[in-house]
Amino acid sequence: MIPVEEARARILAPLRPTQAEIVPLAACLGRVTASPILARLTQPPADVSSMDGYAVRASDTGDLTVVGEAPAGHPWEGILEARQAVRLFTGSVVPAGANAVVIQENVTREGDTITLTRAVAHGANIRSAGQDFAKGDGLVPAGRRITPRDVGLIAAANHPWVSVHRRPRVAILATGDEIALPGDPIPQGGIVSSNAHALAAFVQRAGGEALVLPIAPDDRAAIAAAAQGSAGCDLLITTGGASVGDHDLVASALANAGLVLDFWTIAMRPGKPLMHGHLGPLPLIGLPGNPVSTLVCAILFVGPALARLQGLPGDAPRTTAAILGADLAGNDHRADHLRATLATDASGRLVATPFPRQDSGMLRALAHADALILRPPHASAAKIGDPVEILQLDGLG
Amino acid sequence: MIPVEEARARILAPLRPTQAEIVPLAACLGRVTASPILARLTQPPADVSSMDGYAVRASDTGDLTVVGEAPAGHPWEGILEARQAVRLFTGSVVPAGANAVVIQENVTREGDTITLTRAVAHGANIRSAGQDFAKGDGLVPAGRRITPRDVGLIAAANHPWVSVHRRPRVAILATGDEIALPGDPIPQGGIVSSNAHALAAFVQRAGGEALVLPIAPDDRAAIAAAAQGSAGCDLLITTGGASVGDHDLVASALANAGLVLDFWTIAMRPGKPLMHGHLGPLPLIGLPGNPVSTLVCAILFVGPALARLQGLPGDAPRTTAAILGADLAGNDHRADHLRATLATDASGRLVATPFPRQDSGMLRALAHADALILRPPHASAAKIGDPVEILQLDGLG
Repeated sequence: MIPVEEARARILAPLRPTQAEIVPLAACLGRVTASPILARLTQPPADVSSMDGYAVRASDTGDLTVVGEAPAGHPWEGILEARQAVRLFTGSVVPAGANAVVIQENVTREGDTITLTRAVAHGANIRSAGQDFAKGDGLVPAGRRITPRDVGLIAAANHPWVSVHRRPRVAILATGDEIALPGDPIPQGGIVSSNAHALAAFVQRAGGEALVLPIAPDDRAAIAAAAQGSAGCDLLITTGGASVGDHDLVASALANAGLVLDFWTIAMRPGKPLMHGHLGPLPLIGLPGNPVSTLVCAILFVGPALARLQGLPGDAPRTTAAILGADLAGNDHRADHLRATLATDASGRLVATPFPRQDSGMLRALAHADALILRPPHASAAKIGDPVEILQLDGLG
Repeated sequence: MIPVEEARARILAPLRPTQAEIVPLAACLGRVTASPILARLTQPPADVSSMDGYAVRASDTGDLTVVGEAPAGHPWEGILEARQAVRLFTGSVVPAGANAVVIQENVTREGDTITLTRAVAHGANIRSAGQDFAKGDGLVPAGRRITPRDVGLIAAANHPWVSVHRRPRVAILATGDEIALPGDPIPQGGIVSSNAHALAAFVQRAGGEALVLPIAPDDRAAIAAAAQGSAGCDLLITTGGASVGDHDLVASALANAGLVLDFWTIAMRPGKPLMHGHLGPLPLIGLPGNPVSTLVCAILFVGPALARLQGLPGDAPRTTAAILGADLAGNDHRADHLRATLATDASGRLVATPFPRQDSGMLRALAHADALILRPPHASAAKIGDPVEILQLDGLG
């Protein structure tokens, strides 16, 4: 059994980001940039007004003559002289000769004459050319997951296309004689397959493309044949068959296909029997069959692996400080991940209360949990109010 | 000018959730349930083993005879008698007559005989029928955004289809003679359209379906014609033309089409000139033309509106406590939303440091910001280290 951190490091080590593909701007949200995005133009392209008002010379006061109008997109072509004004709107180019904008609320207008009761400061209400960015500026670095704000910035920088890492393709293979697809006939003593579907959703949310393979029965030849469906993928995830029982067949089934095992147990709960290795060039993560273990392992290992495949670092999921809402016994040698609800106490602190039962067969409790309380190996007993580290599940799966 | 909270309440008040549609399980991630999801079966369906081992009677010790084997999915059909054992695996049905499972590591086996050195407790290593859920249990309430964990639970409950609220359709209309699509020729004094694309990404991330209409020039008839492209949508968002200048045409252009204005300015910065009303039955949010105002207003108003349209409450975005990384002057009568970076100090506290320039034309600063510092109207001057409320942008847009 190896520690959680070592397992994550060994899973991540051989992973390389996928190659770049070109996607239209409208499809780049959530993708990871494959190269830096530079400004193709200067923004604003010229000095522009930040308000509705009049372009003037800063020294002028009293009565000025309005000699023209420049709606946004229709610059006034002349050169503004002393005691002249040009009507501007937000975004209008400030004409040559002007060096300030007076806000329309601060003047009175009679015909073509405006009256300024006091002088306006040099540069007032002007956005200088390049105030936002200059042509050639690096705006979005490579290796960043694109937000809606980034989409706006990329558009403003005049890019109709974006180079991003291809979505990692993840094949998901569920095994077991006892499982049936939702809605399909259920064999006697059988259950409905949930792991593959939860994993596919997890992969999708993490930015990958999930390929759900047909369920393989508990038969070495069938498992090996089903695994061939992962051709062209960047990662194969199996669920079930990663334990040590006689019917845990995945490792032996794939051994014939050339599986090189790296490790197969982690000092953690739930999820001890996690298998990692390579099938030729294809990385394989073999998850245990029970759904709680599968999803906790997905959060701890599959999420970082998908991040790494997309060109992100793939750091451990970020923890948050909280305080305990119930006493906890001391922990054994396995890192524990207790399903918990969150609340905020009167002084604004986050309180994590573990469910009384932590059986790894209880999918409902995991789905209803707000967080996992992280209990390191050999953690001492802890009391209500003691500090703990948690993983908030909201953003993770 | 009305306060931010009142503006949000007035935008949300008339919105009703979209009707339900049926989507396959594999497409329900991130959608909002339209009705409660009940368990269609009991899970586990029978008492099952939680380990690899042997089904026994709890009182038995010493030598027991292995009379059968029950792989998961292949129950043993007999009735276990005293001093008998049946080989089980994780997930195997516990045979009639047995009431405990002894872990395989805790016995020795010779041929068909296993030896227990000590008795195993009644119920040990058995997951009782229904421990996770019983047929008819409510597993996922209506009005919940489906997570990957929920997908697993819905699958396990035997649902191949899920009833969810239809994605709200949001038409986005950018107006202005000065704007051009990314990659298209840019008019003299013009800029590249970024608002519509950032909004479309925002809508997509918030669970809506964005319909980006062609850019309308600054012409009443053209704007009214372009707005007809919103037919069948649940919300129309315009950008540009929401201010009070002569070239702010949206309100007057749509007045002829029957626009009923509700309000048109909010006591906030950036984003004061936000317009809200109805075009017949269609709610309209008119956002200001500058990109920072557009995105801040999207976070404060469009996000909650989309949540409400999907069957969620549409609460204000959740704030976090932080401390200031720079001094701030006192605030005027408008709620301010300062773009800021976040860091964590030595004692683990979140430190929000506003950018020195807060011009609403600076899209790059918004894209690079981690948070908005919320400054209520008339907030007093504040010092480094003072507490502030922030909106973390990461999950918001």
